[in-house]
Parts: sequence; C-alpha cells; structure tokens
Amino acid sequence: MIKANDPNRKSWVGLPSDCDFSIQNIPFGIFKSNNDGPRAATAIGNKVLDLSALQEEGLLDGLGLPTGVFTKSTLNEFMGLGKAVCRSVRDRLSDLLEEGNAELRDNEALKARAFYDMREVEMLMPVNVPNYTDFYSSEQHAFNVGTMFRGPENALMPNWKHIPVGYHGRASSIVVSGTPFHRPKGQTKADDAEAPSFGPCRLLDFELEMAYITGKENPLGDPVSTNEADDYIFGFVILNDWSARDIQKWEYVPLGPFLAKNFASHVSPWVVTMDALEPFMVDGPEQDPEVLPYLKYDEATHFDVKLEVGIQPDGSDETTVSNSNFKHMYWNVRQQLAHHTVNGCNMQVGDMYGSGTISGPEESAYGSMLELSWRGTKPIPMKDGSERKFIQDGDTVIMRGHAEKNGVRVGFGEVKAKVLPAK
Amino acid sequence: MIKANDPNRKSWVGLPSDCDFSIQNIPFGIFKSNNDGPRAATAIGNKVLDLSALQEEGLLDGLGLPTGVFTKSTLNEFMGLGKAVCRSVRDRLSDLLEEGNAELRDNEALKARAFYDMREVEMLMPVNVPNYTDFYSSEQHAFNVGTMFRGPENALMPNWKHIPVGYHGRASSIVVSGTPFHRPKGQTKADDAEAPSFGPCRLLDFELEMAYITGKENPLGDPVSTNEADDYIFGFVILNDWSARDIQKWEYVPLGPFLAKNFASHVSPWVVTMDALEPFMVDGPEQDPEVLPYLKYDEATHFDVKLEVGIQPDGSDETTVSNSNFKHMYWNVRQQLAHHTVNGCNMQVGDMYGSGTISGPEESAYGSMLELSWRGTKPIPMKDGSERKFIQDGDTVIMRGHAEKNGVRVGFGEVKAKVLPAK
Repeated sequence: MIKANDPNRKSWVGLPSDCDFSIQNIPFGIFKSNNDGPRAATAIGNKVLDLSALQEEGLLDGLGLPTGVFTKSTLNEFMGLGKAVCRSVRDRLSDLLEEGNAELRDNEALKARAFYDMREVEMLMPVNVPNYTDFYSSEQHAFNVGTMFRGPENALMPNWKHIPVGYHGRASSIVVSGTPFHRPKGQTKADDAEAPSFGPCRLLDFELEMAYITGKENPLGDPVSTNEADDYIFGFVILNDWSARDIQKWEYVPLGPFLAKNFASHVSPWVVTMDALEPFMVDGPEQDPEVLPYLKYDEATHFDVKLEVGIQPDGSDETTVSNSNFKHMYWNVRQQLAHHTVNGCNMQVGDMYGSGTISGPEESAYGSMLELSWRGTKPIPMKDGSERKFIQDGDTVIMRGHAEKNGVRVGFGEVKAKVLPAK
Repeated sequence: MIKANDPNRKSWVGLPSDCDFSIQNIPFGIFKSNNDGPRAATAIGNKVLDLSALQEEGLLDGLGLPTGVFTKSTLNEFMGLGKAVCRSVRDRLSDLLEEGNAELRDNEALKARAFYDMREVEMLMPVNVPNYTDFYSSEQHAFNVGTMFRGPENALMPNWKHIPVGYHGRASSIVVSGTPFHRPKGQTKADDAEAPSFGPCRLLDFELEMAYITGKENPLGDPVSTNEADDYIFGFVILNDWSARDIQKWEYVPLGPFLAKNFASHVSPWVVTMDALEPFMVDGPEQDPEVLPYLKYDEATHFDVKLEVGIQPDGSDETTVSNSNFKHMYWNVRQQLAHHTVNGCNMQVGDMYGSGTISGPEESAYGSMLELSWRGTKPIPMKDGSERKFIQDGDTVIMRGHAEKNGVRVGFGEVKAKVLPAK
C-alpha cells in the first residue's frame, strides 16, 4: 500500500465533516495570495499548504526536488519529475501532517507562513495543457445521444465498442473553476431555415466529465501499453466541457465539434493523484465484443467517484440535477492512453484527457442537460420554481466529486462557473 | 510598401538562380550547429545567418529586442513582441544585407561567426505550437473527397459554403522537415469484414497544405475580426499533414479524425512572414452564397504561391506528382481566424492553422494521393517504372513552394520526410 493512503492515518489539522481534503488525499494545485506570485500547494481540511514554504524550510529535502520547483506557475515541472518523486513527496507531506509528527505541527512560525485559509486564496489553473483530448467513453451517454438522433436500434456507431472514440479539443480555452465566461455566439441553422444565422447560442449545455493529466512523455513513434499507462498518469480533475448544442449540430459534419466546444472548459483546481484514487478502484463492465489485444488489460481500472451537478440560478438556491459516478465508463483510462499512442502519437507533460460525458444508467445520473431534459422535452424543475431545458444566462453550474470507503474520503472540491450573457 | 519588400533591392550575398531566400524574403527559423545550442536565424541565398550573433554585436540595437531573444529554442518570444517589432527587425536585416550597406558586409570577423552554409546546420522546429487547428478550405479538395464518398451532386456538405470548416489537430506531433517517422499502426475495418483488425496503415497519404502561425493573443471571450486578423498572423510554412486513410475511415464518425492524423505532421523550417508575402496577394474566388457579416472582408486575401509535391522512391529519382497553388482556396486566412474566434476562443502565440489540402482545378493540381490516384483507381507512374496509389515504405515525400513576381522570388524551401516501415 502507498503510505499516504493508509486509512488509519489522522492529521493534526482539524477536518470539517465530509471534507474532501483528508490526509489520505494530498492533492496538488497552484494558488496565489495577496501580492505573492503563484506557488504550488496541497490542501488539507479547509487549509491550503504552501509547498514552496516547506521546501525553503528544508522539510522536503532529500526527495530529488529542484530548487524553486514549487514557485512555478504550473505543476508541469513537478509532474515531470516522475511518479516515484511525486509519490515520495505525497508520502512526505502525509507524514508531516500526521498527528504524531511534530516537525511542522510545532513550528508555529512556519505554520503561520505556510498555511492559508482556503477562502482567502485564489486557485489558478494547476497545469499548462499542451494538448487536450476528449474521449467519448460512457456507453450510456453515447447510447442516449445516439438514440435521440438515430433511434435506439442504431444508437451506437459500429466503431464504438471497438475503439475508445476520441478527438482533439482546444487546450487554450481550458480554464480553472470560477473563471468568468460569456455565452458564445456562432452560426446555427434551424432545420426549417433556408440559411444559417448568427447570434448567441441558444442551447448551452454542460458536460460532466473527469479528466486525467499525464506527467510523462513517450517519444514520437513509441506506443504506451495498457500496462504501462499508470506510470504516465499523474492525476485527475473534474471537467465541465461546456457545449453549444445548436452550434455543434450545424458545424460538426464531417470533421467533428469545433466552436461548439472551444469557447471554455472549466476544471477543478486540485489535481487528485492517481495514487490517492487507488483504494477506490473497481472493476469495469465486461466488454463485449472482445477488444483487440492492444486494448486488453489485467487489473481493475475504474474509479468509484461519486459525481454531482448543481444549477444555481442567479440569486437563488442551487438545485442538484445529476448524480452520476466515474465508474460508469465503458472504456477505462488505460485503454484510452494505449489507444491514443498505438499509432506512435507522443504524449506530453500536462496533457489532459477528458472522459467524455459521464452518464449513469438512471435518468437522474445523466451528465448533460441534453440528456436530462431529453433534448428539451422534459424540463428540469429548479428550487426557485423555474425550469431548465438548457443553461440560462446567470446560471452557475457546479460539479463536485468524491470517493469514499471505509471512512476515508478523497474528494475533488468543485468546479464552478457562471454563465454571463453573450457580449 | 514595406521596406524589405522593395523589388529593387539586391544583396551583397550571392544568390544562386531560382533561390527561395532572396533579400525580399528574410524568413525566420531556428537552427543548431556543432555543439552550440538552438538559435534564431534568417536565410539568404545558401546561407543561414545567426541572428543572435548580430544582436550580440549590437547590429540590432534600438529595435526593442530583449537580450537573448534569439538564443531561445523557438521563435515564440520573438513573434510575441508584435508585428511592429518583427517588421522592423526584418527591415533592418534587409538593410544589413543590401549591397550598399557595409556594416556586416565588411566585418569579416562577424561574417565568419554569423554565417553558416545551409547544408552544414540542422534546422529545428521553428515554433512551439500550443494549439493546432486544421481547416478544410479548398473547394476542389472538399468536392473531390465528397464526390468519392457521396457522388458529385452531394459532394459538399450543406455547411461547407457557410463555415470555414475546421477541427482541432494534435500539436505535439508536428515536427520539422526531415524528422524520421514510421508508418503508423492502427485499427481498420474492411467493408466486408466482420470485425476490425489491427496492423500497419495500408493507405498512407500526404496532404499538401500551407499553415499560418499567430504571433499575438486575444483574450478569452474577445473575437478577432477579419480586418484585425493580419495583425495576428506572423507568417507561413508548408505543412504535410500525413493521413492514414484506412484508419480515418473507421474512426472518424462522429467526432472527426484522430489517430489517422496525429502520428506526424511535418512543416518546413523557415517561417516566411505574412509581410514578405504581401506583394503576392491576389483576389480569392467570389463567394456564393453570400457569407454572414462576420466573415466579410475588404481586401485581396489569397496568396499566389506555387506548390509542388514530389515522391522519391528509396534509392531512386524524384517524380513530381502535383503542381498546385495556395491561391486555390475558397476560404481565406482572415475568414478562418475570424471564424475561429467568433465564439471567444483565445489564440496563442505559436498557434498553427493548416489550410486543409490544397487542390487546384486540374487533376495534376490535386493535393493528396487519395485524389491524384482517385482512391487508388488511377495509379501514378514513377520515373523508376513503379506506380503509386498511396505512399510506400522508403518513399520520401517532398513539398516545395514559392511566390514569384516581377523578378522577385520568395520561397519556403522544402518540407521533406521519409516513411520508415511500421515498427
């Protein structure tokens, strides 16, 4: 067992109930406070712990960390040190936060300098994303969307159970939770219109996704196998892959989604390591038909991470509209990475890979308004008495996720974004 | 007129006939020689001129260049200084190379240090590409491909004349001319096969494209208009957007090409500035139906750049298989950039934008083997007596391009890559 995952560990930092950032989590993020520049941190309870302060103080010596690695504006250099180094840093942080360890606990000056109240800091984009790929790996989601457009008999495309279908997305417009954005404008064409028209998107939707981030490169030409994939995956975030359904419908044939997706995608600020999620791994579904040999794998590869989506209308209370789970995937992350690289495509440090919308088998577990309102035919009631078919101006969409087992909770916090009116 | 574009200028550096790198060109690239690190350079005649040496010597003083800007491994920092600075540097280099100017001409020590024989240096990837977008903007190409798959009546998709259709490509696998690569492997499925199979691509193809590179960012949410686009575009390269046709056919529905494209894309090493191409601008085709207002533009926006593709079988002579021209585009670069950003998508310094395969009206001007051999039904004869339907192992594909007018030639050199057998 990875030391930091020990369920018996307790921290001397007080944890509120249902706290995502237990001592078994130890995620990594980038924050800014007052006039200081960006620095790396972990989260524990309600606190942000500045890793650069710990390193300066010598508390992270002997772990192979270059000077200043935690004063960069992203985690890329740190992730690029490799899984062994990152694991030893997480273990060391766990030790420092463990109730019996006095090194940090009793150093009042350092604590005053290194700890911040989570509400008082600004969380920044945790990584620089050189390449972003979005998969389409939830069977229920593919089935739902296929059913709407082609009927249940032809819902899944012929390739869907043979290939973890994916496509390249836009890296530049991936932003951290809380970043303001405006409803996009674009070309759309109504079925009965002669010609397309231009204006604000009318069918703005969220997509509930998880994304993983790689911390290791493979050279161009050298595939990564399913069994090697773990060594490449640093950690996970929650991803709201906003979609403009009406723009997408008109533009996406034959080369795929483009402006319908690249106006903004929000991620949660804390990268929860793959190591921290290891205790929550479960088996995936049986895959039938049998996959090709390069997509086979040996171990449990799905993650039991509870996910929820809330919509908060402007000035009103939040309504939970979806309760899903990351385990509802047909294709797993090892298969995705093996497929992505089987032609020799080279992965880079910081690359992000979305799962695709995660929809569970029940209607209440669907991961987009398109599915929840079934193309707008079943409006979703809000607590304030209004209804939603898609997302309205002023709405804040909030996604949360956490794993829980044997009294240990490892969570992601939230990714949250408010839709401002089109400019 | 931009000073460096003056057709009457002559250089004291001797130029071979039909030389792409005239004094009216002054492109930018990154090179490496012996044990020295990467540095920025321009090309003149057969020579590479080290810009870091000129800067160190003080010959580029007063132009607003930060110290060391030409000893970076990419042009990104330089491009990011903005079009006014880049233009003044190009003008200054033109002055230094002009026959009447003695500053560099008569400084033998500096010349010995700054000039390299083009054959003796290694050209590197000129820019770091944060985001790569590929358009699909040649009507003849879209018509050809559409005709093969749907017949001539339905060749163009309904959106094609309303939208400069594009999609996100893979940035990490864009490599410079000469970079070795292997035939990709992947999943394919024959029409009459029960299930897909895995193996080396059988229908490997080139795509003849031009690509532009942006040197300026727009903030997320702020579109760039067609009239503002010029200020964002730093320059152009030739792009061979390799395609695995059989992999593409099986994977691309519904989210577009993925592994069929991301195994390698080769670019020419010298970035020819948009400024240098200004004298070669011509009107584009009349667009009918009328485009939406955000896609309208005022000036000539197409580029008369002659393009050719050669195939050189292993150990044999090169056969020219295509003669096309960059002017054979329906959508122009201003429209592409305006469309890309109309939803607020943010461009970054170094972003690359492929034109899509450039096919002219004659069969000999088609820009891919798919079109030239019409899906393999018309094999193309090689000088060595062999034939090609698609690209074979050991073949080197070479693309060249240049503009010429009033005795002035501005060219790109070549982008060249040899296909090694699948690993």
